[in-house]
Amino acid sequence: MSPYWSPLVHRLTPYVPGEQPQLPGLVKLNTNENPYPPSPHAVAAMQGELGSDGARLRLYPDPSADALKGAIAAHFAARAGCTLTPEQIFVGNGSDEVLAHAFMALLKHDAPILMPDISYSFYPVYCRLYGVEHLSVPLGEAFEIRVGDYAGEFGNGVGGIVLANPNAPTGRLLPLSAIEQLLAANPRSVVVIDEAYIDFAGETIPTAIALIDRHPNLLVIRTLSKSHSLAGLRVGYAVGDAGLIEALERIKNSFNSYPLDRLAIAGASAALADTTHLDMTRRAVMHSRATLTRALEELGFAVVPSAANFIFARHATHDAGQLAAALRARSVIVRHFRLPRIDQHLRITVGTDAQCAALIGALREIVA
Amino acid sequence: MSPYWSPLVHRLTPYVPGEQPQLPGLVKLNTNENPYPPSPHAVAAMQGELGSDGARLRLYPDPSADALKGAIAAHFAARAGCTLTPEQIFVGNGSDEVLAHAFMALLKHDAPILMPDISYSFYPVYCRLYGVEHLSVPLGEAFEIRVGDYAGEFGNGVGGIVLANPNAPTGRLLPLSAIEQLLAANPRSVVVIDEAYIDFAGETIPTAIALIDRHPNLLVIRTLSKSHSLAGLRVGYAVGDAGLIEALERIKNSFNSYPLDRLAIAGASAALADTTHLDMTRRAVMHSRATLTRALEELGFAVVPSAANFIFARHATHDAGQLAAALRARSVIVRHFRLPRIDQHLRITVGTDAQCAALIGALREIVA
Repeated sequence: MSPYWSPLVHRLTPYVPGEQPQLPGLVKLNTNENPYPPSPHAVAAMQGELGSDGARLRLYPDPSADALKGAIAAHFAARAGCTLTPEQIFVGNGSDEVLAHAFMALLKHDAPILMPDISYSFYPVYCRLYGVEHLSVPLGEAFEIRVGDYAGEFGNGVGGIVLANPNAPTGRLLPLSAIEQLLAANPRSVVVIDEAYIDFAGETIPTAIALIDRHPNLLVIRTLSKSHSLAGLRVGYAVGDAGLIEALERIKNSFNSYPLDRLAIAGASAALADTTHLDMTRRAVMHSRATLTRALEELGFAVVPSAANFIFARHATHDAGQLAAALRARSVIVRHFRLPRIDQHLRITVGTDAQCAALIGALREIVA
Repeated sequence: MSPYWSPLVHRLTPYVPGEQPQLPGLVKLNTNENPYPPSPHAVAAMQGELGSDGARLRLYPDPSADALKGAIAAHFAARAGCTLTPEQIFVGNGSDEVLAHAFMALLKHDAPILMPDISYSFYPVYCRLYGVEHLSVPLGEAFEIRVGDYAGEFGNGVGGIVLANPNAPTGRLLPLSAIEQLLAANPRSVVVIDEAYIDFAGETIPTAIALIDRHPNLLVIRTLSKSHSLAGLRVGYAVGDAGLIEALERIKNSFNSYPLDRLAIAGASAALADTTHLDMTRRAVMHSRATLTRALEELGFAVVPSAANFIFARHATHDAGQLAAALRARSVIVRHFRLPRIDQHLRITVGTDAQCAALIGALREIVA
């Protein structure tokens, strides 16, 4: 603490990211990283931008990253048959930065915003940063989001809604019909759908981006950290009505003109174009997820149905904190949240089949 | 405009960066980029981090970028004999992001902050973003900062002070003794010194980082965009008392856990270690600056003494806006600000000797 702090610094409770230990031989299943490398085309694009002498890096990047916006539009034209214009796309330094700007630009109103009581734990952190009031809406008994609960009476109205779909850390998916019901019931509030994990939801990807032309209050936020294996590159984006995107651009251009560096723009653009690689790796993860689910169930875990690249599971008799500690002693790290309702669950990233086997082997010893 | 905007979005006047046209054969002297490539060691470090298959990029970067903080400490231990601890160093996505966090964390108080009437035009943009009141303190007749003007009576006191040194777009340098005088006169206010251009100030670099141990209210902000030729990589940092740095960390960890990607951390760390390359390129720029200054004076320009990698100059008879347009017609772009007091000046980046010669050749035709 220091007498020089602005008053707001005192009220903050910063987010604590999952640890990034640098230990050899570690089975790292704690931060939902993709176990497979990124697209070789993305690597080639970054090598190309770097060149032999890095001379391009002496120049500022394109502040609006038009090439990346073009790649995002092309990706959804090919994948989902959507026609997106650059004015419907915003890009940022990871989806965390995009979310932060969305809280400031679109969710800060007189009325409180709504979010599930169990969701991405960064959302309440943004609320404190920007002075946004929020109400927590309880998930159902099976951790399901009940969209009807977001359309009821909330005093002075609803300042906005933010949901992760699939939700984190539960992994549960809300069908597109439920999202549409939520949008229709709240036409005067911005609804932010955080689709960080949606590419793992199934062979067909039920993205809400398909709805943006019909709902000017819908903002969909995505990241390249998970399904594109680029957590280390920091690229996220938002898709929505041009009016919502303009608000994000105004904040961004009052904050940092160039949040994406040249290598990130080049790598992300090429990664989005390589849908073959995307499909190969996401199918591998979904396949491993099914195998891991069965193995965990055989060991006595109750597993929440997952549409993400992680599994949320609770053992019938063993304490979650003790399980996490025992796994760590065997060089396997998973995430355990000491929070109400979920302190007996573990969130386990779906790794390669070999990593999943190492986890199961360790758990078999522990629960024996 | 959209009914979904937060009220604050309406009040913003976003910053407009210098344009980044993609035209072949352009002599680009408008955004103060370094004309020389970055350190070959920086390029090698980025190639190494990328590897043959980009596999490291699937993992999140170190959220606190400890390797980069170590490289910054080592840089100043070697260059300035300073001993910096990691708790005295903050890193971010370009110095613009670092500045933004500083405005929110350290400059938002009840009393207005002070800044020169002519300085980096992003400062008032941050003020509007975060609702920080500010007062503009006029520069002297020769565009000099008069530090005595920042210690007078300002109603309810001073919420903080922000200065660029060398100042932009003037290029004028304030000696370290004047900075120390300013710090001593304002012990209860944070003083932010933005040293984006300080490496071009002379053979010995008069950085205020030398003062941080004696002044807990001093925050010095730096960038790798200019002297390290890495504008395209987006790395900046701040050095100051641990209490000030903690405030920045609290904001950053409530905003975006990982603002620096793996390639940026690797490249910036290696660039800071290569002081031989830094000295070679900054000396070349300073040499070209002297030559360019003489040539401009011979063409009838009055040149403000520059300690930066740009020159701020006014022609005796030709209108600055017309000169900028005529240069553009000859594929040379410089920056012209249509602002009070400086609308008859041009800000010209110091390029290679060949680029400077092209500029002078074009100007000779124009003013003939």
